[in-house]
Amino acid sequence: MDLDFDTHPDRYKHWTLSFDGPVATLTMAVQRDGGLKEGYELKLNSYDLGVDIELADAIQRVRFEHPEVRVVVVDSGIDRVFCAGANIPMLGSSTHAFKVNFCKFTNETRLYIEDASRHSGVSFLAALNGTCAGGGYELALACDEMILIDDGSSAVSLPEVPLLAVLPGTGGLTRLVDKRKVRRDRADIFCTTSEGIRGQRAVEWGLVDAVAPRSKFADAVRERAATLAARQADRVKGPAITLDPVRPEKHEEGQAITLTYQHVTVEIDRATRVATLTMKGPEGKQPSTAEEIQAAGASQWALRAWRELDDAILRLRLNYLDVGLVVLQTRGDLEAVRAVDEALHAHRTHWLANEILRLQARVLRRLDVTSKSFFALVDQGSCFAGSLFELVLVADRSYMLEDEDGEVAVALSSANAGSMPVNTGLSRLQVRFFGEPGKVDELLAKKGLLATEEAAELGLVTVSADDIDWEDDVRIAIEERASLSPDALTGMEASLRFPGPETVESKIFSRLSAWQNWIFQRPNAVGPQGALTKYGQPDRPSFDFTRC
Amino acid sequence: MDLDFDTHPDRYKHWTLSFDGPVATLTMAVQRDGGLKEGYELKLNSYDLGVDIELADAIQRVRFEHPEVRVVVVDSGIDRVFCAGANIPMLGSSTHAFKVNFCKFTNETRLYIEDASRHSGVSFLAALNGTCAGGGYELALACDEMILIDDGSSAVSLPEVPLLAVLPGTGGLTRLVDKRKVRRDRADIFCTTSEGIRGQRAVEWGLVDAVAPRSKFADAVRERAATLAARQADRVKGPAITLDPVRPEKHEEGQAITLTYQHVTVEIDRATRVATLTMKGPEGKQPSTAEEIQAAGASQWALRAWRELDDAILRLRLNYLDVGLVVLQTRGDLEAVRAVDEALHAHRTHWLANEILRLQARVLRRLDVTSKSFFALVDQGSCFAGSLFELVLVADRSYMLEDEDGEVAVALSSANAGSMPVNTGLSRLQVRFFGEPGKVDELLAKKGLLATEEAAELGLVTVSADDIDWEDDVRIAIEERASLSPDALTGMEASLRFPGPETVESKIFSRLSAWQNWIFQRPNAVGPQGALTKYGQPDRPSFDFTRC
Repeated sequence: MDLDFDTHPDRYKHWTLSFDGPVATLTMAVQRDGGLKEGYELKLNSYDLGVDIELADAIQRVRFEHPEVRVVVVDSGIDRVFCAGANIPMLGSSTHAFKVNFCKFTNETRLYIEDASRHSGVSFLAALNGTCAGGGYELALACDEMILIDDGSSAVSLPEVPLLAVLPGTGGLTRLVDKRKVRRDRADIFCTTSEGIRGQRAVEWGLVDAVAPRSKFADAVRERAATLAARQADRVKGPAITLDPVRPEKHEEGQAITLTYQHVTVEIDRATRVATLTMKGPEGKQPSTAEEIQAAGASQWALRAWRELDDAILRLRLNYLDVGLVVLQTRGDLEAVRAVDEALHAHRTHWLANEILRLQARVLRRLDVTSKSFFALVDQGSCFAGSLFELVLVADRSYMLEDEDGEVAVALSSANAGSMPVNTGLSRLQVRFFGEPGKVDELLAKKGLLATEEAAELGLVTVSADDIDWEDDVRIAIEERASLSPDALTGMEASLRFPGPETVESKIFSRLSAWQNWIFQRPNAVGPQGALTKYGQPDRPSFDFTRC
Repeated sequence: MDLDFDTHPDRYKHWTLSFDGPVATLTMAVQRDGGLKEGYELKLNSYDLGVDIELADAIQRVRFEHPEVRVVVVDSGIDRVFCAGANIPMLGSSTHAFKVNFCKFTNETRLYIEDASRHSGVSFLAALNGTCAGGGYELALACDEMILIDDGSSAVSLPEVPLLAVLPGTGGLTRLVDKRKVRRDRADIFCTTSEGIRGQRAVEWGLVDAVAPRSKFADAVRERAATLAARQADRVKGPAITLDPVRPEKHEEGQAITLTYQHVTVEIDRATRVATLTMKGPEGKQPSTAEEIQAAGASQWALRAWRELDDAILRLRLNYLDVGLVVLQTRGDLEAVRAVDEALHAHRTHWLANEILRLQARVLRRLDVTSKSFFALVDQGSCFAGSLFELVLVADRSYMLEDEDGEVAVALSSANAGSMPVNTGLSRLQVRFFGEPGKVDELLAKKGLLATEEAAELGLVTVSADDIDWEDDVRIAIEERASLSPDALTGMEASLRFPGPETVESKIFSRLSAWQNWIFQRPNAVGPQGALTKYGQPDRPSFDFTRC
């Protein structure tokens, strides 16, 4: 059955979202028998992908539907338990590919918390009322602050290494030393002590920001939330908009599957394992003033089409695991895309314009870390301008048709100037021209349409081909790509896509996730005697102690 | 049989090192039947670990024994073949642990080329007289420049992804986009094109620095070498010293193995999988002037003891794979260590003092990336001062004995101020106090010995324990560590040891190597139908195309 990413607070099984002026409370009370699949029970606020899909939805809705919110308190609806982390029987019974994609999605969700804090003026406060283990503590690490109940037993912990022989892979190791800057030897002790660390010592080591006794815990959380809300008080945001559902129509015929949204279409050929994703540019009148952006709400192209793109990528990742190559196409008017970009950038101090731009940036970053190859095809009728030109820059390669009439073109806009960076902090033009940094400004100064010859000359596309060669060139490139080892491509793309500096975010997807993926393949974790396999069983795991 | 790292140009099987004034030539002519193990033939200048051990030795000897050298031309003794890269049948028949450790060593060797270029004024010029594939091109990438013969057929290539379903894992992907700053889409084409790229296009894409036709190739190499030599001409270095052999005596008794060097002893308990490495501090009069440093040559403690440490770590890595924990101890006089450090730092413009400091820095970085846990024990008689205090900072944890007389102490020196950075560019004190950057200068201002109470107070050690608790605390910590999954520890340590920024060097060991290690576990590479397994056989590999 296909995984579905569309949800709504009215339908949440595991979370409650409530509001009190500028303070929202997001309460986790995971339904034990509410797992996405059979075969595991979601005890002690442990989570599976379904729980995280709701969390991601909640963060998104707070940003668009509750602009008055300044603080989100993340707490638990279960007494003495904050969150026990990812559900182990679920992980233990999942395929390697699902484990990897599950961790990627949960990593993105935690980054969305930090993105909302950084860019939307919403602080996150984790109220740790009890056990806070593994992925539960990693969720707290993504928040701006955390308060731990001081009751002589409640602890924060990352017991993955000692209990499960895997890593705290949802950003835990990186955030510990890079974000919270916990001293590395203390982090070493913490990560190898399954019972965790509690009370004042947790504060001293920087593992939590404060502790409070049970009798004063609720007050401490309330007070801290009020302080955080006051810190953000001068932001003017609203009125709210309502996010309408995003879900494609699915059509299946033999080996061909089509997912149809309003602006996005995905055609999947199961035989060749290639998907073609086509995004339509804006049609008709688009908002150009802040008032119009506000009035157009969720239906405007800049928001709707990009939410569809996001949903399409998630479906490709999790429902079509063997699709190795996504061909990116666009259809529409170059100038219309640019006009939308420029309107959003001109009004980016307006809360909704800002939120739309941040969302587009997140969708693009979701593509950057997707383990599929992307080829962009720039041909007749395409509209790779500005924000959509970022898709060409996301792509591992791009092909552009040479036409005599100069009708095939690309164009840049303010969207290419740094508002949508990759996770290393560089813009995609900076990434592309990492060896020629001066060139980026030169390119951004080009205000006209760039026809094939000029675009190729400027290095904006990989290959240009004339009418005669186009079809064969593209077909052969696609066939070749689809024949290569998916694992080697994943590792190659994860390296070539990210030249230059690294950030907490990029280190999570490179250093941390790559090691975790390795460990997720090791017999000591997932073999018949491995710790993940043996978890909850009476006999102990047994290890091959070879170090490598 | 134990691997041995001690060699000498007189005994090289695969390389010739020759000298012509400031230009050295390091010629690769791999002996086909000279592999370290049976079962593979080293055709076409393909290499195994034995070839790389000689290469590492040659680079080291150029620095110490040939200070007059300004340029090393790396060329081939085989017509129309520069180097075909790592030997595939060797890789295909190796264990996972050996593959990982083999790649780590070859990565270090390539980094030593760059270290010699950056810090010793020795430029490296790769003269690519023919086929230059995979690890062969990665060797060239580590050089400052490369010239490719332009004969209509010779190409540079990274065919790992299309031919073997693994990565160019010896820094290739990282150096391509991060060092040479090749555009990422071109890098994508290059890394998926098994026949590689030749001629002018290779120059245009930045894959090589120049091409020359066969008739002019030798001249072009000679001229370029002369130019590079002239660039470095003002450095005064020498007279040369001679590096004496470093090899331990091995003593075996039941489960206990002892490796004894002059200054270093390693005691391995095969039953507990714990090694205790004890390094003695300097004894007797040590050189304090530049003249004395020069005169003392290879026998001075600062060089000899650290070469022994390097050899000991390599032996632990490759000969004792199941040793998971190395307990670091020192014996000697704190002030004597500091005096040696200060003399070297005071005279660091002297070529040999510089070389000794750079070597110590490399040895410490070798420890940083070693996949074993390190615990430092600071007790009575220890001398963790300055350069040896870096061992405490390398360690994942440190334990310090509280004694009433204040005899147990540590101390800092100029060696802790940044001359021996980790591969991210930070000093180890900066890494340790990543959350309190101001503290580093405060600590460096402390010129006295720091007894246990003060050292613990300052955060210089992890745990302090009194006489009564010491033995139990240490024993339990060691036992616990040795019981954990080696894979989870490797991933954890690779994350916690490196907070902060990343560099080309650190990205090679994190982003690139971690992905490569993952791929080295994947059935698509190493399973019965995997590409590495099927290489050279008539039938093609078959892949599971699931993307993750």
